[in-house]
Amino acid sequence: MKELSATKTFGGTQSVYSHQSEACGCEMRFAVFTPSKAKHGDGPFPALFWLSGLTCTEENFISKAGAQRMAAELGVVIIAPDTSPRGENVPDDPDGAYDFGLGAGFYVNAQQEPWSQNYNMYEYVARELPTIVKKSFPVDPERFGIFGHSMGGHGALTIHLKNPEIFKTCSAFSPIVAPSQVPWGIKALSNYLGPDEAAWAEYDASVLVSRIPSKAEILIDQGTADNFLVEQLKPEIFAAAAERAGQPHTLRMQEGYDHSYYFIASFIDDHIRWHSERL
Amino acid sequence: MKELSATKTFGGTQSVYSHQSEACGCEMRFAVFTPSKAKHGDGPFPALFWLSGLTCTEENFISKAGAQRMAAELGVVIIAPDTSPRGENVPDDPDGAYDFGLGAGFYVNAQQEPWSQNYNMYEYVARELPTIVKKSFPVDPERFGIFGHSMGGHGALTIHLKNPEIFKTCSAFSPIVAPSQVPWGIKALSNYLGPDEAAWAEYDASVLVSRIPSKAEILIDQGTADNFLVEQLKPEIFAAAAERAGQPHTLRMQEGYDHSYYFIASFIDDHIRWHSERL
Repeated sequence: MKELSATKTFGGTQSVYSHQSEACGCEMRFAVFTPSKAKHGDGPFPALFWLSGLTCTEENFISKAGAQRMAAELGVVIIAPDTSPRGENVPDDPDGAYDFGLGAGFYVNAQQEPWSQNYNMYEYVARELPTIVKKSFPVDPERFGIFGHSMGGHGALTIHLKNPEIFKTCSAFSPIVAPSQVPWGIKALSNYLGPDEAAWAEYDASVLVSRIPSKAEILIDQGTADNFLVEQLKPEIFAAAAERAGQPHTLRMQEGYDHSYYFIASFIDDHIRWHSERL
Repeated sequence: MKELSATKTFGGTQSVYSHQSEACGCEMRFAVFTPSKAKHGDGPFPALFWLSGLTCTEENFISKAGAQRMAAELGVVIIAPDTSPRGENVPDDPDGAYDFGLGAGFYVNAQQEPWSQNYNMYEYVARELPTIVKKSFPVDPERFGIFGHSMGGHGALTIHLKNPEIFKTCSAFSPIVAPSQVPWGIKALSNYLGPDEAAWAEYDASVLVSRIPSKAEILIDQGTADNFLVEQLKPEIFAAAAERAGQPHTLRMQEGYDHSYYFIASFIDDHIRWHSERL
């Protein structure tokens, strides 16, 4: 594991690391914020895993969300991985589209060629990364939470529901909640997993919540002025499925907010505090 | 004036506008944050003018500094202009260097060809922009302050010292305080103003503070791990000149912080509150 940068911010340290990933068969990057030792001691700290959306790298969240302030105040570590495998030998969407391939791993384990060798972001986020983080940073593995935005909200919901013993708390901003039913999800799941929709269900939060609800409350914030709300996001599908399944959940429709980091920044304090209180 | 975007954040609105600038002879962009009417009423609000550093546009500060949270809380408008003229007909550094020409207006009125037609960022920030802002936004012109980073810290200091009746408060992050004595400043001032160093003095904060100290306290934050500290910034030159001139000032050396927006974000709340208390 190689430290690419380490920058002091809010008394803590915002770092970026690279390492050779077994799951993805390439070099992967992830960002880590660790709070001030002077203020909070040596830990171990609760850790939140942030999953970003389409087109993002590990950089967007750490430079735009303003999460470090509250993480520094409460004494929380934040881990933010890249959103897909990268590198010369990693295949990309043949048309270079933003919604598939590089920057669009969708947090699944691909089963189709040529994607299956590298596009194993589920394995990476749910297994490999927590193991690395436990070994290398002052975190308490009994206090891991997961959250994310858009495609990363989908990742957070599905990974939490399938691993509530690892990621005990879960929240999302503007998540894709029913990828089997929306254009972004249909494109990604059919390419990564093949035409059999039964395989898609394994990565569809609205299906998973019916089958394997977790006991933990799930928090979702969604802006009403989000351009993707009606066609791609459809949080009401998840809310209805969660209601039927007895999954504790809160869906907050935030009046006038869009899909951008200006929305995330506005409510990131809430989310970090919410996880912190439950971990 | 054309609204290019308007995004809800922290209950207020982050907008970007473009307009034809008389001072710069080209289309210019500037960003405006206005706080929530529901929380703070219709104003008029105090307004802080933020000047960014080398390579920046109006975008860097509004997406990375996290300033909107505190501005929304205290009820403050923030104006963030671009750092230079732009456009097809605007000349740039012949080698495309980052530290001169586009993205590097240095907040001066150029006197040399081919720069003098467009590179009038002093006139733009000190005269044209405040006039536009007064006309178009709910601001109280008796409560204007100015702050900035690096090249923009130089801009804030010089524009405040020359116009303390317009910009009543002034603070800076990692400012260039003595451009006549450091490589960035010597390159910019000799190209924009010509070889006569007497002309440079008009834009050198450490000279100006000796000649025309303001009555207002000036706040400077400087990271000790800033790579540009020793060669380009030299805040001790300003502090010594201010001391001799009886200019009230506070220079805070912030241990371990660098030159990035991670540093700015860490102390932006302090600065906004500091201005707000004085305006």
